[in-house]
Parts: sequence; C-alpha cells; structure tokens
Amino acid sequence: MRLYSYWRSSASWRVRIVLAYKKINYEYVPVNISPSHSAQHEPSYAEVNALRQVPVLEWSHRGELTRLTQSVAITEHLEAIHPSPQLLPDEPLKRARVRELLEIINSGVQPLQNTAVLNCIKKLTGDDMAIDWARGVNEHGMLAIERHVSTFGGRYAVGDALSMADVFLVPQLYNAARFGVDLTRFPRSVDIAARASELPAFVAAHPDAQQDAPAKAST
Amino acid sequence: MRLYSYWRSSASWRVRIVLAYKKINYEYVPVNISPSHSAQHEPSYAEVNALRQVPVLEWSHRGELTRLTQSVAITEHLEAIHPSPQLLPDEPLKRARVRELLEIINSGVQPLQNTAVLNCIKKLTGDDMAIDWARGVNEHGMLAIERHVSTFGGRYAVGDALSMADVFLVPQLYNAARFGVDLTRFPRSVDIAARASELPAFVAAHPDAQQDAPAKAST
Repeated sequence: MRLYSYWRSSASWRVRIVLAYKKINYEYVPVNISPSHSAQHEPSYAEVNALRQVPVLEWSHRGELTRLTQSVAITEHLEAIHPSPQLLPDEPLKRARVRELLEIINSGVQPLQNTAVLNCIKKLTGDDMAIDWARGVNEHGMLAIERHVSTFGGRYAVGDALSMADVFLVPQLYNAARFGVDLTRFPRSVDIAARASELPAFVAAHPDAQQDAPAKAST
Repeated sequence: MRLYSYWRSSASWRVRIVLAYKKINYEYVPVNISPSHSAQHEPSYAEVNALRQVPVLEWSHRGELTRLTQSVAITEHLEAIHPSPQLLPDEPLKRARVRELLEIINSGVQPLQNTAVLNCIKKLTGDDMAIDWARGVNEHGMLAIERHVSTFGGRYAVGDALSMADVFLVPQLYNAARFGVDLTRFPRSVDIAARASELPAFVAAHPDAQQDAPAKAST
C-alpha cells in the first residue's frame, strides 16, 4: 500500500494512525500541499485525486491499481479488511457515537479550516481574517466535541476502549491549538487525546515524525 | 422516532430518504434554520444539538431518551438496525466506493456551503460573494462527483443497485442547481439522480413535500 500524505494534514494523520495501529506496512508518498508548493495542483495529481486533496491510499491487486480517497472511507475500509485490533465497537449505538464524534470533526470542523478554504478567505479578506475564521470554527467545534466526550467518553473518547473517535480527536486538538484556541476550556478532550497520543501508533503517526516534516516545524 | 429537520437542509433530506426507503415511521419536528428565523440558535436547541444543526434523530427506549446527530452517523445507524432494504453493498471495496462518494459530498462540498458558512461569508464580503463562493464549491465538488460516478457508477451512483451514495447525490444536485451550477456539464450525475428521484422514498423525502416547505418555494 502507498499513502499520499502531507505531514501536517489532519486527514492524512488519521489514516497514518489506523495503518500504524493495525500494523499495516505502507510506502509514504509526500505531497507538499503547503501554499508555497501546492503540489496537489500539478496536472498529474488530478489522476490521483480529482478533489486535489490528501490522503489517498493506493494498492495493486492482481495487476489492478486501486485508489481510495476520503479519510472516513479509507479508515472504514481498513477496519473492514483488517478488523483486528478493532477501532469500531460492536454495539450499534456505541458505534453510532463513534461515527457521530468522528463526523463532528470530519464534516463539522475540518473542511471549514483546511488549506484551500483558508486560502480563499485570505484572498477575500486578508490574512488576519483567515486565522480568526479558523480559530472560530475550531472553538465552535470544540464545544460540541467536549460535550460529546463528557457525555459518552470514559478512558477514551467513546467509552473505555480506544476507537476511531480517538483517531480523529487527536489531530483535531492539534489543529485547534495551532489556530490559537484556548484548550484549557476543554479539559476532558485534552485528557483523552493526551492518553491516546502516548500509544505507539499515535507516536509513529505524528506529523513531526513524518519524513516530509521540516527539521524544525513551524507551529 | 422523531426527526428534527428543515425542508431544504440537504443533510436532513438524506435522513428522510433513508427513513422512507426503510419504511420507518417517524414524527417530523420542523426547525426553521432560515436566516430570518434561526430557530437552531434558540437556547433550548443547544440541548438537542450543541453544533446547532439539523438533522437530529431522537428516540426513547425503556424510558431513556437518545439523540443522534450527523447525517452519516444517523444513516449508518439506520442501516445497522434496519439492514433491509440494504443501502450499503456487501463487497468491501464497493462499500468503500459508496462511502467515498458520500464523503466527497458530506465533507468535501456540503459543509462549505451550508447556511452558517454563507452567513459568515456574507458578513465578511457581501451577498454576491457568498453566492459565488457557494457556486464555486459546488462546481469543484461536481467535477469529482461526475468523475466518480463515471468510473464506478452504473444504473445508480455506485454500480447497478441503489445505495447510500444515491441518497447523498440527489440533495447534492439540488444544491448545485440552486447555486447556479450548469449541470449540463455533469450528465452522468444528472441521469443517475433523476432515476433515483423517481423512487417513492425519494419523492416522499423531497423538500417540497415536507410540512415546513413554503406553499411556493423560492429556488
């Protein structure tokens, strides 16, 4: 398997965690989506992902090349084909709570503050507004996330077992911090993310541990 | 079951289609999220959904009230507890293609043009920019969607059987049209959505058929 990834892309990070947690070997293909490079807009990348985003997981089976995009579709697929160790609980309502938290992050927060959107806001209004926008989006989302983990969380984001919800939570907290959100307001989320972050798979998948991370990362 | 819904909310619409297709009875609770009402911002609605969005599915079981948010979490849960008629294919890669298309719409397009975001863009830049923004987001997304259905679609969005991908595709085309996207550029998507739209469940779930739709809808 090959993963098209960018060190600081939170959607790539989610897939890296799942691959590491399930001990699936893969080749890392860096795609520099930073505004100064925009490698995703090179003509050849349209073949890889028409939406010009990372991550993309690619594999060959009997000579046929398959590419799968969208972090939720990729992580659900990895769970389906490599069910152990498990990242979705068996009980239907608990599974729904995992997907609920994951989508609060995946569709409620992340798309509104990704590089493409921030570039548009910058063009429309200037740099400061883009940071304000990103912080506002993250704060609003963190309120819902903190409430969710306070209600349904335990040792981890949903109950006491690690799940896909933690996989999505950890990069979300990194983004919120990056855009200046005061995380002391969200102590349950911080506590759970800190616990998950210590696991070897999460350590291996961290942006700073990727081959395309700058020697000294800007934060 | 009770569904907190707004007639023209595409995320609510998805859930309405699944409920109708699986013949699950429910009570319709209208939430007027139009800018002139903003009922989702009333203090009491925070209890229902901290992100102040529709849809929310609510039910009681042995005296315990459960509320589930996020259209993907809700539709996946309905599929899990009411597996027939089926909306997710059995074959893992086909299932992944359904979730991929669904997330292109759910996280790649819809969040960037929902009411809350358009209100922000209006405040920052004025009305015209908001419409341009929404059209741009929809056009970009439609390119990826058209390519997806041209590659993996058949009679329906993924293969020849109706799936969750069609449930998400139909409201997406309605939104794209509403924001002035020229749909003649996306003939496969239009053809598939037209076929799905004729099914009784899709007719029943259409915005214009909802109790909170204005007598004569603005388009």
